[in-house]
Amino acid sequence: MVVVMSPEATEEDVARVVARVEAVGGEAFVSKGVVRTIIGLVGDLDSFHHLNLRAMHGVADVHRISDPYKLVSRQHHKDRSTVWVGRPGHQVPIGPDTVTFIAGPCAVESAQQTLEAAQMAKSAGATILRGGAYKPRTSPYAFQGLGVAGLEILADVREATGLPVVTEVVDARDVTVVAEYADMLQIGTRNMANFGLLQAAGESGKPVLLKRGMTATIEEWLMAAEYIAQRGNLDIVLCERGIRTFEPATRNTLDISAVPVVQATSHLPIIVDPSHAAGLKELVVPLSRAAIAVGADGVIVDVHPNPEAALCDGPQALEGPELRELAQAMRLFPKLLGREAARAPEPAV
Amino acid sequence: MVVVMSPEATEEDVARVVARVEAVGGEAFVSKGVVRTIIGLVGDLDSFHHLNLRAMHGVADVHRISDPYKLVSRQHHKDRSTVWVGRPGHQVPIGPDTVTFIAGPCAVESAQQTLEAAQMAKSAGATILRGGAYKPRTSPYAFQGLGVAGLEILADVREATGLPVVTEVVDARDVTVVAEYADMLQIGTRNMANFGLLQAAGESGKPVLLKRGMTATIEEWLMAAEYIAQRGNLDIVLCERGIRTFEPATRNTLDISAVPVVQATSHLPIIVDPSHAAGLKELVVPLSRAAIAVGADGVIVDVHPNPEAALCDGPQALEGPELRELAQAMRLFPKLLGREAARAPEPAV
Amino acid sequence: MVVVMSPEATEEDVARVVARVEAVGGEAFVSKGVVRTIIGLVGDLDSFHHLNLRAMHGVADVHRISDPYKLVSRQHHKDRSTVWVGRPGHQVPIGPDTVTFIAGPCAVESAQQTLEAAQMAKSAGATILRGGAYKPRTSPYAFQGLGVAGLEILADVREATGLPVVTEVVDARDVTVVAEYADMLQIGTRNMANFGLLQAAGESGKPVLLKRGMTATIEEWLMAAEYIAQRGNLDIVLCERGIRTFEPATRNTLDISAVPVVQATSHLPIIVDPSHAAGLKELVVPLSRAAIAVGADGVIVDVHPNPEAALCDGPQALEGPELRELAQAMRLFPKLLGREAARAPEPAV
Amino acid sequence: MVVVMSPEATEEDVARVVARVEAVGGEAFVSKGVVRTIIGLVGDLDSFHHLNLRAMHGVADVHRISDPYKLVSRQHHKDRSTVWVGRPGHQVPIGPDTVTFIAGPCAVESAQQTLEAAQMAKSAGATILRGGAYKPRTSPYAFQGLGVAGLEILADVREATGLPVVTEVVDARDVTVVAEYADMLQIGTRNMANFGLLQAAGESGKPVLLKRGMTATIEEWLMAAEYIAQRGNLDIVLCERGIRTFEPATRNTLDISAVPVVQATSHLPIIVDPSHAAGLKELVVPLSRAAIAVGADGVIVDVHPNPEAALCDGPQALEGPELRELAQAMRLFPKLLGREAARAPEPAV
Repeated sequence: MVVVMSPEATEEDVARVVARVEAVGGEAFVSKGVVRTIIGLVGDLDSFHHLNLRAMHGVADVHRISDPYKLVSRQHHKDRSTVWVGRPGHQVPIGPDTVTFIAGPCAVESAQQTLEAAQMAKSAGATILRGGAYKPRTSPYAFQGLGVAGLEILADVREATGLPVVTEVVDARDVTVVAEYADMLQIGTRNMANFGLLQAAGESGKPVLLKRGMTATIEEWLMAAEYIAQRGNLDIVLCERGIRTFEPATRNTLDISAVPVVQATSHLPIIVDPSHAAGLKELVVPLSRAAIAVGADGVIVDVHPNPEAALCDGPQALEGPELRELAQAMRLFPKLLGREAARAPEPAV
Repeated sequence: MVVVMSPEATEEDVARVVARVEAVGGEAFVSKGVVRTIIGLVGDLDSFHHLNLRAMHGVADVHRISDPYKLVSRQHHKDRSTVWVGRPGHQVPIGPDTVTFIAGPCAVESAQQTLEAAQMAKSAGATILRGGAYKPRTSPYAFQGLGVAGLEILADVREATGLPVVTEVVDARDVTVVAEYADMLQIGTRNMANFGLLQAAGESGKPVLLKRGMTATIEEWLMAAEYIAQRGNLDIVLCERGIRTFEPATRNTLDISAVPVVQATSHLPIIVDPSHAAGLKELVVPLSRAAIAVGADGVIVDVHPNPEAALCDGPQALEGPELRELAQAMRLFPKLLGREAARAPEPAV
Repeated sequence: MVVVMSPEATEEDVARVVARVEAVGGEAFVSKGVVRTIIGLVGDLDSFHHLNLRAMHGVADVHRISDPYKLVSRQHHKDRSTVWVGRPGHQVPIGPDTVTFIAGPCAVESAQQTLEAAQMAKSAGATILRGGAYKPRTSPYAFQGLGVAGLEILADVREATGLPVVTEVVDARDVTVVAEYADMLQIGTRNMANFGLLQAAGESGKPVLLKRGMTATIEEWLMAAEYIAQRGNLDIVLCERGIRTFEPATRNTLDISAVPVVQATSHLPIIVDPSHAAGLKELVVPLSRAAIAVGADGVIVDVHPNPEAALCDGPQALEGPELRELAQAMRLFPKLLGREAARAPEPAV
Repeated sequence: MVVVMSPEATEEDVARVVARVEAVGGEAFVSKGVVRTIIGLVGDLDSFHHLNLRAMHGVADVHRISDPYKLVSRQHHKDRSTVWVGRPGHQVPIGPDTVTFIAGPCAVESAQQTLEAAQMAKSAGATILRGGAYKPRTSPYAFQGLGVAGLEILADVREATGLPVVTEVVDARDVTVVAEYADMLQIGTRNMANFGLLQAAGESGKPVLLKRGMTATIEEWLMAAEYIAQRGNLDIVLCERGIRTFEPATRNTLDISAVPVVQATSHLPIIVDPSHAAGLKELVVPLSRAAIAVGADGVIVDVHPNPEAALCDGPQALEGPELRELAQAMRLFPKLLGREAARAPEPAV
């Protein structure tokens, strides 16, 4: 941590900062410049936070130097992690050696629509099924999902197809029931800073797919992951899904650079959701190719057997031709990066 | 609603859109241009939403024309509303005829600190006390608030000072207990889109102070208010507290224009929080003056008896000289707009 | 300046940074932390810039501590400046003791329209006339201004009304001719980083009104002012006119906080343009009141005798009732801040 | 174009809009809704613009439906264009069938540094040389480029290596001299809306590389291209180089989605600059892979023989290992998209 004093700060101001730091066991190195003095702090970052140095007289600014997250940081955990999704013996990996393809409908609307979407996804090479039973919607008048009935449909479709299921949970009170049915809990973009929900997910015993808040910095996103990790759950997969910018041509701006930035600072896997970033199905295939090429550990896309009739986000759902094009890209591109498509182990005969 | 067809759309594409609209009882007016055809829809907006027109073949875009919110809209409720905060007979108004001054510590740290801050606030002319017992913090390692013990302190300080209390609730599971102690529930910026929390607050029977999500559009913010209103609670006060932009000089950018924009479209009162927008106490007084001058129905600011020792947001808390300057502005500026400082009625003798 | 080494940096990496700093006469204070080493630099900032320290092996980051601007900084020029606009003996001040009211049409369209707008402006209390003869337009198919003919109209209207004239220059090649006619040159938002134009304006001998780039940070804006100042011209007035954000309800988001932030760091006067920020005339009066209340040194607004027929930005131009309301605010609000309306001295009898 | 009337609009307001549209030869289709009336306009868009409909009484909003650009639009020019760079017989294509690799130093510092960088670039497979002789810098105290001496170095290095040269021009007054030396003119991000410069480049007779303004929408960017095209020059290549967002981890946020969005709406080629977007050399290779995978027509990157000593943007310049990695990606990835590396034709023997 570096404390920058204002040009008007007095010797006493500097001495008071030093004394306060030393009082909690830290060391303070003072560098006197022509105009300003700066003070470098060495010691326990957390104890410094409580000192409230920024509010002290004569202090102009305080720069944090180290990362504020610990458990999810790569600093003390050099190897990138792999998270396994599904029942023992049928787990699909998400991690540095593979590219995982997750697909399914935005919302679970009926048993048949979900089964058809899952079969489309599986035929295209997807090995995890996505689908929403609880939908956070901007309007209270929009379709909010089927709830437990939707979870039951997802469980049935898992039986029928063998695909593990990831589904969103939007309220801490629902974590227990969702964790009963799902193989992986998704925390959506609007709930990234819902700390009670993060903690509940951290105690659920299931892996968590944590979407980036559409207006969260990468650091805030990793701090949200830290909330989950703090409850003893390190099976966290991050999902970049676009950030809010001034550009209106796409629903959000896919921050493709976030993938290598996250991989350099955190050991957690990171995948990309091009469907929600773009909001337009024409962009899903090129953005999926870009995601694999940049080094993402997987992609998650919307598919629907009949996008025109979808109750949620129809314009971004893939069907026939685009899905075949995506399937082909998922076969070809990972090899150029020395990776392979992620799948559950074949059962021994 | 206006449907814009793509230049390549066929007669059949247009006919299918018209048929789908008419099937739910709507009317469709077709205007054929040289390059494109546009279709104006008349009828029930909600039924059109479910049609998923944007996903239909030949459709380039769908423009919504009307506001998506209803209960909080000014369209059918021309008079701006007043919300009353506090116990019967001692209620303080927030509305178009007054300017309400709310002040207190960012976080409740101890009984003494809270009482001192409340006395500072009252001396400066504040008539509602703010103070946080539950703090949503970006870091799981930061001070998270005193919880119920904090609520008890707030209730005691209300007894001692007569000031009604507004305090934040961060989890739907805490709404009942917070509503027992507080006179007004605050929903913070990170929870503006926590729909379960909004609905619980809507059922609490207490007025709600709804802060703008730091990255929410005004329309999304009014939709969040609609979630509360839908549960039968129209005692909602909006609070502009700065939005996230590229400018690093302030913590957030106070969107002062949001005040007249909201007042033109919604009947709900709107106040301004300059402390959290700026993050710097030097800016609190000038921004408070600007808030009153633009027509805000109140301001809410952080005060602390000893900002250097504050456990939360010390750098933005006002103390002696700035607080006196703010008190003076709160006396002088409302008059120029034909308003007066909001206070509870004097008890009859 | 503070150099932050990466956790992997070696002793040699640190020594190389120190050596490079000392080679240009600087001092380097090394603070070794548990995880990282930081190095505080003392000496001539400019010489450090050329060292390209951020590209050196083992360097994680370089934090600048001091402001990068000098001539426009308040650090060595504590008193806020006043800029005088107009011919000797008839100069109108823009500075800390006054509030200057500038008004006129967005574009000069004809002699009569300009004269009428100027008379409206003068009746409302404006003491400087604005009006564009050169218009930078996003579309090459939009009205681009009358050019020299427009400058002549402005000069005629100045004769008729006595109001000094500020007008935009969009190309370095036009600076000479514009400076012949105008009393003050305006650099528009799209040209804030057109460095050749800034330098030409700096050599023009006329005061300059420098609008903020709609996507410029305050620091970049002050660096643009530094370009002008470097050519020997310190008669610079800054103009906040809204920044680009995600909020679509207003054309841009007026960054009202920029006013006190600039006044704390620079000695230059700063005014506010609410018309271009909002893009809607309904917002111009409340935002003007907010600008004065926050402490701006003036406001600049669009007026037009017939907004429906305006060739440029009609929807934001004030006419009768709003203009009278603004005139009243301009009379009442400055007094609360101990200021008065700026005007040229009365001629001696 | 669609005109949306406000709920309070009268019959007369509607009639006045219709009359004004018909007066310039347009047609107006009126659709009366329960709450609002909308009016669809058919006819010449440009003539409607001058009507200033948005300022008319009773008009709430005006939605443009068609694209505002024409010459660069794909609407009347379905085939994507190829731009040829270099002297007759040695021209390198940039277009839909190839992937063009452009590399070189950010700034021309000396003959030797430029030659070495060009040789590095050529060895890695680049077929066009980039290098700046005129540098637009935020600070007037930073290195501003060698000017004409730099252009001469670039011309010499072209002779020595056979690589055509693209270099930036920052002032309309320099276009003639830069066009004498360079094979392609670059307009930088800060000058994207410098309309005088765009027009001068449009008259230069040389192809133009138009970088996206760091805060420009895609539509504004295409309007800037339209300024060049209007002067008779359609040899324009667009370059996505990152946009300004709230995310601080990268210098700008590479808007990878802009590539397919532009290709769907304009016939012009589009390339990607990952160096300036990221500002960090570690990200250049993964982002280059993503650019090719998303379908970009080329990439442009910074290389430098000694990044630690670079006078400009050293931290983002590639050298040995990363450059080899990039060279490999440039060989492998285009094939998966059915493209090949762009090069000048081999001279006939």
